[in-house]
Amino acid sequence: MNMPIENRAARDAYYRRIAGRQLTPLWEAMSALVPERPRSPAVPHLWSYDAIRPWLMESGDLITAREAVRRVLILENPGLAGTSAITPALYAGLQLILPGEVAPSHRHTQTALRLIVEGDGAYTAVDGERVTMRPGDFIITPSWTWHDHGNDTDQPVVWLDGLDIPLVRFLDCGFAENYPHETQPLIRAEGDAAARYGANMLPVDHVAAPGAAPIFSYPYARSREALVRLAADAPADPWLGHKMQYVNPATGGPAMPTMGTFLQLLPAAFATRPYRSTDGAVFHCIEGGGECRIGDVTLAFAPRDTFVVPGWATHAFRVRERTILFSYSDRPVQRALCLWREERLA
Amino acid sequence: MNMPIENRAARDAYYRRIAGRQLTPLWEAMSALVPERPRSPAVPHLWSYDAIRPWLMESGDLITAREAVRRVLILENPGLAGTSAITPALYAGLQLILPGEVAPSHRHTQTALRLIVEGDGAYTAVDGERVTMRPGDFIITPSWTWHDHGNDTDQPVVWLDGLDIPLVRFLDCGFAENYPHETQPLIRAEGDAAARYGANMLPVDHVAAPGAAPIFSYPYARSREALVRLAADAPADPWLGHKMQYVNPATGGPAMPTMGTFLQLLPAAFATRPYRSTDGAVFHCIEGGGECRIGDVTLAFAPRDTFVVPGWATHAFRVRERTILFSYSDRPVQRALCLWREERLA
Amino acid sequence: MNMPIENRAARDAYYRRIAGRQLTPLWEAMSALVPERPRSPAVPHLWSYDAIRPWLMESGDLITAREAVRRVLILENPGLAGTSAITPALYAGLQLILPGEVAPSHRHTQTALRLIVEGDGAYTAVDGERVTMRPGDFIITPSWTWHDHGNDTDQPVVWLDGLDIPLVRFLDCGFAENYPHETQPLIRAEGDAAARYGANMLPVDHVAAPGAAPIFSYPYARSREALVRLAADAPADPWLGHKMQYVNPATGGPAMPTMGTFLQLLPAAFATRPYRSTDGAVFHCIEGGGECRIGDVTLAFAPRDTFVVPGWATHAFRVRERTILFSYSDRPVQRALCLWREERLA
Amino acid sequence: MNMPIENRAARDAYYRRIAGRQLTPLWEAMSALVPERPRSPAVPHLWSYDAIRPWLMESGDLITAREAVRRVLILENPGLAGTSAITPALYAGLQLILPGEVAPSHRHTQTALRLIVEGDGAYTAVDGERVTMRPGDFIITPSWTWHDHGNDTDQPVVWLDGLDIPLVRFLDCGFAENYPHETQPLIRAEGDAAARYGANMLPVDHVAAPGAAPIFSYPYARSREALVRLAADAPADPWLGHKMQYVNPATGGPAMPTMGTFLQLLPAAFATRPYRSTDGAVFHCIEGGGECRIGDVTLAFAPRDTFVVPGWATHAFRVRERTILFSYSDRPVQRALCLWREERLA
Repeated sequence: MNMPIENRAARDAYYRRIAGRQLTPLWEAMSALVPERPRSPAVPHLWSYDAIRPWLMESGDLITAREAVRRVLILENPGLAGTSAITPALYAGLQLILPGEVAPSHRHTQTALRLIVEGDGAYTAVDGERVTMRPGDFIITPSWTWHDHGNDTDQPVVWLDGLDIPLVRFLDCGFAENYPHETQPLIRAEGDAAARYGANMLPVDHVAAPGAAPIFSYPYARSREALVRLAADAPADPWLGHKMQYVNPATGGPAMPTMGTFLQLLPAAFATRPYRSTDGAVFHCIEGGGECRIGDVTLAFAPRDTFVVPGWATHAFRVRERTILFSYSDRPVQRALCLWREERLA
Repeated sequence: MNMPIENRAARDAYYRRIAGRQLTPLWEAMSALVPERPRSPAVPHLWSYDAIRPWLMESGDLITAREAVRRVLILENPGLAGTSAITPALYAGLQLILPGEVAPSHRHTQTALRLIVEGDGAYTAVDGERVTMRPGDFIITPSWTWHDHGNDTDQPVVWLDGLDIPLVRFLDCGFAENYPHETQPLIRAEGDAAARYGANMLPVDHVAAPGAAPIFSYPYARSREALVRLAADAPADPWLGHKMQYVNPATGGPAMPTMGTFLQLLPAAFATRPYRSTDGAVFHCIEGGGECRIGDVTLAFAPRDTFVVPGWATHAFRVRERTILFSYSDRPVQRALCLWREERLA
Repeated sequence: MNMPIENRAARDAYYRRIAGRQLTPLWEAMSALVPERPRSPAVPHLWSYDAIRPWLMESGDLITAREAVRRVLILENPGLAGTSAITPALYAGLQLILPGEVAPSHRHTQTALRLIVEGDGAYTAVDGERVTMRPGDFIITPSWTWHDHGNDTDQPVVWLDGLDIPLVRFLDCGFAENYPHETQPLIRAEGDAAARYGANMLPVDHVAAPGAAPIFSYPYARSREALVRLAADAPADPWLGHKMQYVNPATGGPAMPTMGTFLQLLPAAFATRPYRSTDGAVFHCIEGGGECRIGDVTLAFAPRDTFVVPGWATHAFRVRERTILFSYSDRPVQRALCLWREERLA
Repeated sequence: MNMPIENRAARDAYYRRIAGRQLTPLWEAMSALVPERPRSPAVPHLWSYDAIRPWLMESGDLITAREAVRRVLILENPGLAGTSAITPALYAGLQLILPGEVAPSHRHTQTALRLIVEGDGAYTAVDGERVTMRPGDFIITPSWTWHDHGNDTDQPVVWLDGLDIPLVRFLDCGFAENYPHETQPLIRAEGDAAARYGANMLPVDHVAAPGAAPIFSYPYARSREALVRLAADAPADPWLGHKMQYVNPATGGPAMPTMGTFLQLLPAAFATRPYRSTDGAVFHCIEGGGECRIGDVTLAFAPRDTFVVPGWATHAFRVRERTILFSYSDRPVQRALCLWREERLA
């Protein structure tokens, strides 16, 4: 604001006086506090699995899963240095569990998802039931459920961890406890939850409960089959290709209250029109490959790569072969709060 | 009410006078209008498929599907004579469609379910998509959707029709229209709905809509597998055995707004404890066999038999071999209106 | 269906044979079971309060409230003779309680509404709290709540009772119990529910419960004031005038799960365009007067008159002075079941 | 973790190498990222109105409402310096509008609440309708609605602004626009929304919409009356006194999706038991006065003072006279995300 110098000086003196009382003038900060449009501090970035894998394996020599509790390399957004966050609300990491290891049992209010990247046959136990994990499978650890992992195979297993750690920290809602033993007792047979909740039926006396889905495994085989079938017959959305959300079968809502999860198929040689939405998202390539252009930045991705698109950043995909992407974002938070926007651009 | 004769006469005279004004005294009808407990006019009854099948086939000689529109024998409850109802709110019938026949396309506000009894490979088209039907499959025709059926196989096909016809009539909500052509055009590939809505995922921009599920086929193979798996590991409910409800994957609510549908497994040699609920139900035996005792009445059932248990009638099952029962009732109506009750008896 | 006589005979013989097995042919009843449009058995009818009042008062000589339990003259639709119903799903009656009388405490699964017609100061007690009732007030007795009435004034009090008796009977859901004493103990002060739930606030730990509103009195003074204010400034709907629904402040849904309740203002000299909806409705004139034309029938109504418009019956109002109508219908049932339709005609 | 020095050195070298690839080890940050319990960076603090008022009035000399857009002194938490936040998710400010001034019309995705502190008769216009504001009134400016304020009285008017600015910034969801003119046209009469939505009725064709309440004014007179009435007859909660939440009458849910608002009455001489909840809250004393003890800190408050209690901070109140407190917090966010906890301590 241009103004006579005496006004400027008078105002500055005033600001210094009131600062001691924990007061600041809104009118000097209006455009920062009430901006015209979002400008995320996060930036686009890609983590190449081929480049990272050696370091991940090296961590296996440096520390045991037991000592680490969780042997994970955090993927931290360059624009959010020091926060351990990949977008302002979300966290991502790559976890390694070696043959014979156990990641001890604990629970916390943060919700976690796992997307298996490499290795077949490790398990996650959630609230007394185990699930065996295969590449491409999407596994949920709901908030405040006891969970532990183990690898009874002879190969290392790696998965992508997604958690709402920054969001929960921001809201001052983080609680955590260790289970008194390394692993929890198993009280239900493997496959119970899938049979009980995942076959388009529910127990006759099921009572809807808020929170994450009562199924905690979404096997890639089934999700992939559905997506490929749809793609064979239905027209692709010019901005999204074929994109599905994983849902809670007991409510039809998102599989987790704080993180939306998606599986997306881009047909061979497909190029999407530019698109943006307020929820920043983490993408993981399961099959295929191509490019994601975000503003001036072009990220070339291949299978097992992970990359981040900040909120409200216009982006477009171009792929060579048929490509399947898993992604997650804080969309359910934004939708629950009536804040979410998307834009399909020309 | 015992009273002096002059009172009785005075009251009777009064009642005659006011009747001409469409007035009647509540106090003479209190226990009928506001009863202590329900006393359904429906009675228990069983229709043996072996006994009925010949007449069903005979109807195939008497009338074509085209002329009949729907060649169905209605299962009418002996206690509800003249209503075409099997319970006060529900309708049941057995429909026959012969090789090469088509049941012409129409739509109506009544919701319909089909439980395939005999014959493999007939189709139902709903809102532009076909589904192939196999024995034990549960198919929905949602309210006001265009639907037609056809049998391109070389065998007769029979299914159990369940509709909310009496309920819709009671509420004065019945509308119906014929499609201008015998069959509707197909605009989506077979299997589209199952892929789009039935794999624990939904399209990313799905908007929840009231009404029946967006999937309209619940294949017996999948439902049976889930139920058998549960039964293998989880304890049976002493009153219900293992009982699941078919749900709308987009909401977790009942597959249809007016009719609850259930699949129930009773292990070999199982005997349930007595149970009752306010929703009268139609049962259809898919596998196994045994008895259902309802008050003084014992119904012995075998595969493909259909029987009715009136509302609030205490009943118990006893089976020899592992038995799988499909059933439907007006439970969603009663629950939506906060009227439903159940009782597990000793 | 025209057909050769030998076919007709063959079919008739067939029908007789199968009738013994509780089977009937759908194709002979199709248009009755699946009609093109609703044809309610109910007919339009009006009960003039001036004509009825003498008989109502005469009932006060004939029987006590205690003996009658509820001293009510039922308004029975001429087209539903013998059912005690005013529309297929609804019941209406006029209840009289004389000075010093008590209508003993009981509860039943049927929900009741009261619209006070004459007399100021009688009370209804619901679940331990009393409400004082004034003309035009709308009072709820939720399903299964203990309720009793008393008249501590020196004037007779009359109200219109609306209940879902026929609906509950149809669904086989009727239960009833008498309270062990004539009146229930009062455990909350009068006005507690209105303060706790009715002032656009709720207790901080309120848990949403299904069923009727937690407030059970909607005073005419407040409802009328809101309606008159709206009518002063906002345009009238050409088909409905100014029409509001009473709602449950804890959900925004209808005040009762089974009966919709409405307050409607038609400005002086207003004539509505023709309108119809599938829910048959009972109207009660609180102020003003005019005509309701339903098909060929014209009902002239004045204050305190009650009249019924069957479901899907086209009707239009014409009033001389500003008119306020209370009405109730089974709209929430039809809406919950996705069956409700309305039509604004030219 | 105590370990041999060579391990420590090896690990540190490893950490430096991977940092260049935006990778960090989770196991070194576990307790910060997944804490045992919340430790909010916010601290307890009180802003005394008597101390602040002179500076607020001085701002009236320094800048016009038009130039400032909003002439507000932000209450910034000492523990959140530089963020303009009072709790991590919430913002608070005191806004002054002088006689004859207008705060120009704009809209933004951030939701705002106003609690009038001083001055009777200024107005807020929201989406084409004005509301006149009195001390103690709670006014909503829903997300993305045009709003402007004006003071046509001859006295300054001050209110407390509460907004979800930090939350919206965190989620990258901030959009804002100026209205093309200084004030928006009025298209509905004052009082329309209150009549249409606030009298326990809704328009007959109302469609539930997500977001803030359709009423945007909660007059203190009515809220206070309800609270005082409840307090007269009902027992006080030992931890909360009498505490109500403002609700959306069209849903029964919170009045705004992102901020819970509460009115709380503590009877004369009342002392609450210690209590904590995960949602940090801003309190404003409307009547009475007393102390709030938060850990080691005791805040003495009087009418028109504002103070903050961080999330999960145990606190207790002690009052001399009957005290009425308004408060707001991010409870609806935490509840929607299934993260909210409270604890009633001994």
